Amino acid sequence: MIEPAMTHEPLTDGRLRVVIERIRPSVDSGRFPLKRVVGDVVRVGADVFTDGHDALAVRLGHQLPGQADWIETDMEPLGNDEWGADLEAGSVGLHRYVVTAWIDRFATWRRDLVRRVEAGQQTQVDLQIGAQLVDDAAARAPGDARSRLLEIADALRADAGGAGVGLALDDELRALMATCPDRRFETRSASHELVVDRRDARFAAWYELFPRSTSPVPGRHGTLLDVIERLPYIADLGFDVLYLPPVHPVGRTFRKGPNNALTAGPGDPGVPWAIGSDEGGHMDVHPELGTLADLRTLVSAAGGHGIRLALDLALQASADHPLLREHPDWFRARPDGTIQYAENPPKRYQDIYPFDFESEDWRAMWAWFRDVVRFWVTQGVRVFRVDNPHTKPFPFWEWLIRDIKSTDPDVTFLAEAFTRPKVMYRLAKLGFSQGYTYFTWRNTAEELRTYFEEISRPPVSDFFRPSIWPNTPDILHEYLQLGGRPAFATRAVLAAMLAAHYGIYGPAYELAEATPREPGSEEYLDSEKYQVRDWSLDRPDSIAPLIRRLNQIRAAHPALQSNDRLVFHAVDGADLLAWSKRTADASDIVLTVVNLDPQRPRSGVLHLPLELFGIDAQRPFEVHDLLNDRTALWHGEAQEIALDPSETPAHVYHIRPALRAEQRFEQYQ
Amino acid sequence: MIEPAMTHEPLTDGRLRVVIERIRPSVDSGRFPLKRVVGDVVRVGADVFTDGHDALAVRLGHQLPGQADWIETDMEPLGNDEWGADLEAGSVGLHRYVVTAWIDRFATWRRDLVRRVEAGQQTQVDLQIGAQLVDDAAARAPGDARSRLLEIADALRADAGGAGVGLALDDELRALMATCPDRRFETRSASHELVVDRRDARFAAWYELFPRSTSPVPGRHGTLLDVIERLPYIADLGFDVLYLPPVHPVGRTFRKGPNNALTAGPGDPGVPWAIGSDEGGHMDVHPELGTLADLRTLVSAAGGHGIRLALDLALQASADHPLLREHPDWFRARPDGTIQYAENPPKRYQDIYPFDFESEDWRAMWAWFRDVVRFWVTQGVRVFRVDNPHTKPFPFWEWLIRDIKSTDPDVTFLAEAFTRPKVMYRLAKLGFSQGYTYFTWRNTAEELRTYFEEISRPPVSDFFRPSIWPNTPDILHEYLQLGGRPAFATRAVLAAMLAAHYGIYGPAYELAEATPREPGSEEYLDSEKYQVRDWSLDRPDSIAPLIRRLNQIRAAHPALQSNDRLVFHAVDGADLLAWSKRTADASDIVLTVVNLDPQRPRSGVLHLPLELFGIDAQRPFEVHDLLNDRTALWHGEAQEIALDPSETPAHVYHIRPALRAEQRFEQYQ
Repeated sequence: MIEPAMTHEPLTDGRLRVVIERIRPSVDSGRFPLKRVVGDVVRVGADVFTDGHDALAVRLGHQLPGQADWIETDMEPLGNDEWGADLEAGSVGLHRYVVTAWIDRFATWRRDLVRRVEAGQQTQVDLQIGAQLVDDAAARAPGDARSRLLEIADALRADAGGAGVGLALDDELRALMATCPDRRFETRSASHELVVDRRDARFAAWYELFPRSTSPVPGRHGTLLDVIERLPYIADLGFDVLYLPPVHPVGRTFRKGPNNALTAGPGDPGVPWAIGSDEGGHMDVHPELGTLADLRTLVSAAGGHGIRLALDLALQASADHPLLREHPDWFRARPDGTIQYAENPPKRYQDIYPFDFESEDWRAMWAWFRDVVRFWVTQGVRVFRVDNPHTKPFPFWEWLIRDIKSTDPDVTFLAEAFTRPKVMYRLAKLGFSQGYTYFTWRNTAEELRTYFEEISRPPVSDFFRPSIWPNTPDILHEYLQLGGRPAFATRAVLAAMLAAHYGIYGPAYELAEATPREPGSEEYLDSEKYQVRDWSLDRPDSIAPLIRRLNQIRAAHPALQSNDRLVFHAVDGADLLAWSKRTADASDIVLTVVNLDPQRPRSGVLHLPLELFGIDAQRPFEVHDLLNDRTALWHGEAQEIALDPSETPAHVYHIRPALRAEQRFEQYQ
Repeated sequence: MIEPAMTHEPLTDGRLRVVIERIRPSVDSGRFPLKRVVGDVVRVGADVFTDGHDALAVRLGHQLPGQADWIETDMEPLGNDEWGADLEAGSVGLHRYVVTAWIDRFATWRRDLVRRVEAGQQTQVDLQIGAQLVDDAAARAPGDARSRLLEIADALRADAGGAGVGLALDDELRALMATCPDRRFETRSASHELVVDRRDARFAAWYELFPRSTSPVPGRHGTLLDVIERLPYIADLGFDVLYLPPVHPVGRTFRKGPNNALTAGPGDPGVPWAIGSDEGGHMDVHPELGTLADLRTLVSAAGGHGIRLALDLALQASADHPLLREHPDWFRARPDGTIQYAENPPKRYQDIYPFDFESEDWRAMWAWFRDVVRFWVTQGVRVFRVDNPHTKPFPFWEWLIRDIKSTDPDVTFLAEAFTRPKVMYRLAKLGFSQGYTYFTWRNTAEELRTYFEEISRPPVSDFFRPSIWPNTPDILHEYLQLGGRPAFATRAVLAAMLAAHYGIYGPAYELAEATPREPGSEEYLDSEKYQVRDWSLDRPDSIAPLIRRLNQIRAAHPALQSNDRLVFHAVDGADLLAWSKRTADASDIVLTVVNLDPQRPRSGVLHLPLELFGIDAQRPFEVHDLLNDRTALWHGEAQEIALDPSETPAHVYHIRPALRAEQRFEQYQ
């Protein structure tokens, strides 16, 4: 791939004198689209200037999804050659924006005329110069404006009774001239792309479960219809998206047994990611889970609960996948005639065959993958979680996601990429709507602060939307293994309150399932990846009530619905992490303080930036703990905090915006 | 001008899997050339990665000036997907660099084979896979390598006596394979440009004078031959470049008199920037100064003193310029038939006509300007100071400078642009070798520190070379007007020790000429711009000795010959500014401390970063004051400093690199 050249362009016309630089926001100077959600307003800025002293006209062009025309807005000068204008992300889809600018000879002449008049230098020649500009404009103007402009030009030349200057500076002339500017020598910036997604691409709570483990009858393989029965529970907890691991036929050859055993017993269900068998491949439903009709029913039933269904897109095949017969050239053959299975020596994954993305037939293979996604989109699925995207070529993802979104712009893709930092960010730039993060491995206050500052601010936040998962079927972190139920509570608060987009793998999470396959492993013992599990959802020690409350708080507080304005606050005290989120106008402020030590009570002094909150440091303000529904009056920037993990892992305070004095103390009257 | 597009490129081949990002150093992602001087080594870095786990080959390509071929060097992996290699700026001219990378299937296979062998997993099939890679390579290899590769491939397949693995891992095979890599799917970055200038584009001391004032006979108009007589004085002071204001015929119509009087007397010489009369224009020498032959003689005589002559490139015309008749369409006509003079209402410059860069005939006009520069290049002039480049279009400068340097890459251009920050930086990016700065108006310690940190570090230092002038014929700052001789000494030390490239307008500077035309003005009283002056160079209060010493210090100390590693140091004490410069290996370190108050003695405690200097904080070190030739032993990072402006404005210390113990105290034995 030739990266776009930025070097010297051939000279077209030396009279194009305006320079446009540093358009912002932009991702890698416009190479990749900016990401926003519908309803956002993007403040677009640019450096625009020319040689000499001429006045400029600077406009922001905005192309709406699917439109050929550009809507133009005047950009305002902000000083130091910076210009700005707002762009409304009013609809889901691919928008474009561009900055254009030209030298405005009429505005220059008008400005200079004012100065000349003030200095007593104005002459007839100045009015004649203006008349010529007006004449020229008339030639470009629509019919009715044209005749009026010609009239004014004549009047300027005549200057009857010295009326010329008044006419020249009149708003009528300015308005008429604005209808027909001379843009022959305008400079036009590179066009920048803006992908606008649904609001829940930014703000959502995901719940992952294995349908195989949803049967009400212990030991029976769960079905998609069983999942429907689980929907009220998931909706009650406040989740927006239900994500299922692959629902396709599971391969039989080399099928793995419980706990990743190399051979499976006759009743073992195998790994859902080993896709494909005699019963079909990526466009089929695993018979033990049900039928395609059942899946459509599930999509519809979930919708009735306000829940969207997310499917897994895992581009790999089991040894039994029909594609191995239909398209053997999509896989890499070995000299002994066998097909190359997945491996990262010395690790071997004999039940999974990767596609060979260097196949001569790559175009047909790409098209087939696209057909897979379109097939599920047709079934009503609009949300995809993509398995291991970092093991498929980058150009493929850029193409696939653009292609799907060109017809279905509301479809979103979550990248399951736990890989190197630059690879994760590249995937985000290429189009993934959200990405998994290193959150699982960030456990100390300093680690969390540093990481969330990186991912919640530009440049990263302009292209990467973090999706925060305290656990996944692949990752049971040592912190959870050792910390027990308080650790699960703490990590849930961190995920839900730090990040607008988060998810859990349940019911393992709310039931605080904490036993690893073996010491030092991050794999679950008796993982659902390899076997059916039964879960007692009504166990009294479930942290479901905390999770329900967190999701309620998120829904009620706009401050928590984006990662903008996430600010960490100083705490004098070990293992305490404090941060706030607030809306742009500070009308909603949520302050969270967490004890990161799941074993020991911790206390310390918290320091708050009251000015940022719009709070007068000389007056008391109200804080309402949303977890325990207690209200307190605080005064000043320093506050004592104490948290005992045996009681609660955190305080989640709603800081009440300033009220009028007579209302401030209503609860105490 | 359409700015280069950075948006979505059409897909060429989906199998180009390697990504190259963030090549550095680069100026605006490669849109503009990087600047270096001959002898520099550029450490080039890039982020390079691919999907999955394949091994990469990454190379830095380097195209030398005037060459079509690219020289390739392996880039080394530095961790976190970053790669680096050195590029030598070995010759003056336009270099290019590019990063190329591809998936190295042989290296991947070899690495995996080692892992397989270690894990006891190696099989015959693995060797057969390798044999196929070697066979494929043979088809690409030169004749002698080809037959050996085919031999090895057969031997790998045969694996006689189990010798296959040893053969596979042998360095012979690695070396042979490196001669014929499979680069079908390589990724090639955008080509980046590197302008390499002569060393004195970065490190030089300029001396500006008006030839009109060099006559030994008071009142007589000086000549270019008089300037030759002045050369020994200038060389003795240690200057490298002698810059003359325009030497062309001066216009007569609207000629200005002394102190910018609207009318000139019969003997008044006029303003040298009002170029053009019946006696010629931009390619002629003003008869009162001499002839073209005299100018060539001056160039040659200056060269004999190690001094290069810089001419002024002022693209404007007096009312008498021959071009007004030959090319009236290069100027803007007014409706009354007159030509538009320069103005910025209410200011008017009736003696100067700007060119109309929006003329239909702009191409011919540009070509004529280029011919002007080429004419003087032919006369031996290689250095130009460009007057007011910010009032001519940016594309013109980019074209002109590239054009001249394409045949004469050693020619340099200093931009006299005292204008808005973004405009100054744009001019630098477009190709100016150095630029004037805001130094004149930066007088407090905080102002100087902030400004020099900005201009001495990337990204600015990659394209902008500051030229530091404490005075010019247009600017006599209030600090000099009020501070008297000590102020001139202080500003000379600041300019010469802070910046590798600096200049003074003399003899006004060394004679501390400090009287403004009127209070509040930055214009000189009786400015040479409008009249001939006599100067008494041997006045006892001249600061020429200080300037001579500063230039000697600069010549002797490599640390002062670039702005890299300029570091300011904390001083507890008002009006004191302290900084150091050092070479990359810290073998030369120069520490300067200046009292910015020209009236009062100042003292304070200086804090030094000894670790940066490679000095053991537990041991004494030697400092040698290069201004007064005194040596002292210091111990520890805190040092008392006292400076009385009536004695010296500054200490300029050479910090001696660590010596062996028996040598350290040699001066005290």
